Amino acid sequence: MSAALTLPRAATLCPLPAEWPLCRGGVLRGGWLAYTMAGPAAAPALAVLGGISAGRLVAADPATGAKGWWAEQVGPGRPLDTTHWRVVGIDWLGGAGLSSAPRAGAAFPTVDTRDQAAALACLLDALAIDRLAALVGCSYGGMVGLQFAAMHPDRLARLLVLGAAHRSTVAAAAGRTVQRGIVELGVRAGDPAAGVALARGLALLGYRTPEGLEQRFGAVAATGAAHEHAPVADWLAARGQSFAAAWSAASYQCLLASLDLHHVEPAAIPVPTWLGSLAGDRLVPLELMAELAAALPQCRGHRELATQHGHDGFLCSPAAVGDWLTEVLS
Amino acid sequence: MSAALTLPRAATLCPLPAEWPLCRGGVLRGGWLAYTMAGPAAAPALAVLGGISAGRLVAADPATGAKGWWAEQVGPGRPLDTTHWRVVGIDWLGGAGLSSAPRAGAAFPTVDTRDQAAALACLLDALAIDRLAALVGCSYGGMVGLQFAAMHPDRLARLLVLGAAHRSTVAAAAGRTVQRGIVELGVRAGDPAAGVALARGLALLGYRTPEGLEQRFGAVAATGAAHEHAPVADWLAARGQSFAAAWSAASYQCLLASLDLHHVEPAAIPVPTWLGSLAGDRLVPLELMAELAAALPQCRGHRELATQHGHDGFLCSPAAVGDWLTEVLS
Repeated sequence: MSAALTLPRAATLCPLPAEWPLCRGGVLRGGWLAYTMAGPAAAPALAVLGGISAGRLVAADPATGAKGWWAEQVGPGRPLDTTHWRVVGIDWLGGAGLSSAPRAGAAFPTVDTRDQAAALACLLDALAIDRLAALVGCSYGGMVGLQFAAMHPDRLARLLVLGAAHRSTVAAAAGRTVQRGIVELGVRAGDPAAGVALARGLALLGYRTPEGLEQRFGAVAATGAAHEHAPVADWLAARGQSFAAAWSAASYQCLLASLDLHHVEPAAIPVPTWLGSLAGDRLVPLELMAELAAALPQCRGHRELATQHGHDGFLCSPAAVGDWLTEVLS
Repeated sequence: MSAALTLPRAATLCPLPAEWPLCRGGVLRGGWLAYTMAGPAAAPALAVLGGISAGRLVAADPATGAKGWWAEQVGPGRPLDTTHWRVVGIDWLGGAGLSSAPRAGAAFPTVDTRDQAAALACLLDALAIDRLAALVGCSYGGMVGLQFAAMHPDRLARLLVLGAAHRSTVAAAAGRTVQRGIVELGVRAGDPAAGVALARGLALLGYRTPEGLEQRFGAVAATGAAHEHAPVADWLAARGQSFAAAWSAASYQCLLASLDLHHVEPAAIPVPTWLGSLAGDRLVPLELMAELAAALPQCRGHRELATQHGHDGFLCSPAAVGDWLTEVLS
């Protein structure tokens, strides 16, 4: 695997086809996918895919000190128990992890959610995993899961989708239009990190609920304190800057475009599917997932999970999510 | 009125105190307020104040060809009938009209909603209007109306507030934090108009409802068409650019800050007040106006007006608004 020679050694890398045509017309040359595995080699395999800012490090790993973006759900004794399942996690193509992504000055092709699903299929080939016992996908990972199920129904026994659907709402697409414009303005200002941070701050507002923000920051807002010092502004800035420390403008644009382009025909998904909506989710509202549920040939359930946090409930409300995972996978 | 010599002749200008200390510490020197009057001189006076992008031209004026931002509500035979009322409209201090506002290269003080209310009081002095029969304020104009009622309760018989409250929600303040950041990024990129246009596009999303956007643009979104050509993106760009043609970055920042700083103590408003909420308003939700209604000593009614358009319902749903105005003022 020649590509690995020029890359950090801590990552496990799976080479993708040397000359790989992507869905939207581009070609990825010499690409690779970074991944992790946790759990016994003989155990049934699960793929666990998160939002655009999640990656291969799903479970906490005491050996490396990795926190794991879904450590509450994945690990020994957790709802996705790594003593019973073999859990596969990946870094997104085009993203901020160690998979192939835009490099400074080099063109990078448009990455569709179907391309991410195809990359996962390549990885499963490399790992000799014929069929996943389940794919659990949250947010962007749920979109990729829907594509995978449409493209490779024979390689997947069960699909669990949390906070994702077959398409975007117009409001979500419009919000991303503004986010892409902000990133571009940052690049034009010679300060791409400022654009990425501000765009991420805007995205974050869509991941939360007005009620949740009010509860957390409302007491101070009521005093009419000078806006420059509003705690919610400080919070947005801090969260945006920490995101911008990890993400280049080109990678963020790549995955924002991928979110925008996502579309899958529910009727083409013959896999038994369970849907979870996050209460108050403004990005992927209950109604949109109900539209998906009604159009899926094999929808086995659509549950609204209790959370104060809206879309980010898949991260912020682990108990409700864990109960749902346990119930569906038991 | 010496200031008028250097200003467009079409506007009627009212000089403000030559050395005028504003609420947030700045001083406005040699300022003026642009205004219009419609209706008989002897008729009882109404002040009609709109959003930050509304101004002195409230009613249509066939003589000048002015469209009037609230022509459906104000004019002969309209709910605010200019054969029975004398209607006063103003351009906001700091805004895109003909009132004092930031000029290129010159510092401009922070303008609080209390300053706008004080400027209106100056204008009423100049016009020898002791007392308004009513003040009708929508959005930013409603905030200014609440301030006017708190500062000059003896000069106002009735206050009508549509889509405005005593404070902002945290979510609205957070959205404006991002908008101000976008405008600043545009200035840094050497393209302030691009920043203003993009920030206005973002603001616009808060003025509408997800359902309304879905209804208008949803059919195309479902096809998964390339995001660059999404009709909602074109709409945001066109609306943003038309706003940016009229607004400087400095003026927009001035009124965004004014929105952010707005706060009034409802208990300090002894004027009989009627509140109208726009159904689905995400910027000024029903719950926030209910909080205001409960805290006002003289709240005479709080109605939710039917609209598909959320906050922009005060412009986009004239029939529901007209019925409410007629009922309250009859």
